[in-house]
Amino acid sequence: MAVNEIDKLIQLLGRVPGLGPRSARRAVLYLMKRRDQLMLPLAQAMQAAAEKIRACSECGNLDAQDPCAVCRDPERDRQSICVVEDVGDLWALERTSAFKGRYHVLGGTLSALDGRGPEQLNLDRLVRRVREQGVGEVILALSATVDGQTTAHYIAEKLTAHGVTVTRLAHGVPVGGELDYLDDGTLTAALNARK
Amino acid sequence: MAVNEIDKLIQLLGRVPGLGPRSARRAVLYLMKRRDQLMLPLAQAMQAAAEKIRACSECGNLDAQDPCAVCRDPERDRQSICVVEDVGDLWALERTSAFKGRYHVLGGTLSALDGRGPEQLNLDRLVRRVREQGVGEVILALSATVDGQTTAHYIAEKLTAHGVTVTRLAHGVPVGGELDYLDDGTLTAALNARK
Repeated sequence: MAVNEIDKLIQLLGRVPGLGPRSARRAVLYLMKRRDQLMLPLAQAMQAAAEKIRACSECGNLDAQDPCAVCRDPERDRQSICVVEDVGDLWALERTSAFKGRYHVLGGTLSALDGRGPEQLNLDRLVRRVREQGVGEVILALSATVDGQTTAHYIAEKLTAHGVTVTRLAHGVPVGGELDYLDDGTLTAALNARK
Repeated sequence: MAVNEIDKLIQLLGRVPGLGPRSARRAVLYLMKRRDQLMLPLAQAMQAAAEKIRACSECGNLDAQDPCAVCRDPERDRQSICVVEDVGDLWALERTSAFKGRYHVLGGTLSALDGRGPEQLNLDRLVRRVREQGVGEVILALSATVDGQTTAHYIAEKLTAHGVTVTRLAHGVPVGGELDYLDDGTLTAALNARK
């Protein structure tokens, strides 16, 4: 017997964070009633994004082109690189419009608990960028968690050997908070007061 | 400039009930990290469901085939039809496995506020099924709201002329429910229907 298309869709949709089995059922019924206005465009947008969007080979940002829009932009300051854990943090910073340099996405933090060491992060590429592109300042915009600050410390040690100024986000980031959840005003203030 | 694929996907996903703009962003990042395991299968399942799933011309249920699996099943009792507002209610009843007849999906209730009259509901088809298929019992499984009960009353009047038994779901204490939290109306109904 063929797998039921609806059950399959509900099961997959229920794995999306923010939706469980029950809300996935509701969502599928909602989508089925809006087949042409929402369901088909959403399916196509998802397919297109899955096929076209790749990680930028320069900074790790997600974009349909490589290098990404930020790395390609000639208006962006090539002197400063802002190091973030994840693309969501990069988006949060971009929404503030407070930073005019470029980014570097680590893809996580060092974590003893999760067994994530330096070699699992996008670190070698960062060191190479700093060395080869005459970067003057690296801003470490990492979460104010233990893992985030350990990672910041590790990167700062690694980079100061290359004669680059390493700064961190100012106090204002709540201890234990995640960047992605921060409001834009706090994020802007923290960026401006970096030291 | 081309529309950014990620922004488009976030915008569409944020319109799914249960997800807002912020959780849509998180969901997209989560999906992008699970491109092959989740994102592509989900896009394809959504496309397939949107293309293949149609309302059953017999009962209004959603299925890839017409008539739907319930209407096609020779094991189901053709003597009784359970009338529900929506496909979600049909699914809820199917999960109980307590009903062995067939269904009829109205597509809503009568509503003076929303301006929904009898002609907007899948009612003519129900009357025809009752008349032509020798149906013995019609169970009205409609919500215990004012609109739901108005609709049940309207359908009961319409159908008794065709010599069919019309029943409704019993009102009472939900199984596992605490008396203390029950509203007065339900408690009164449960008391009156004691056995």
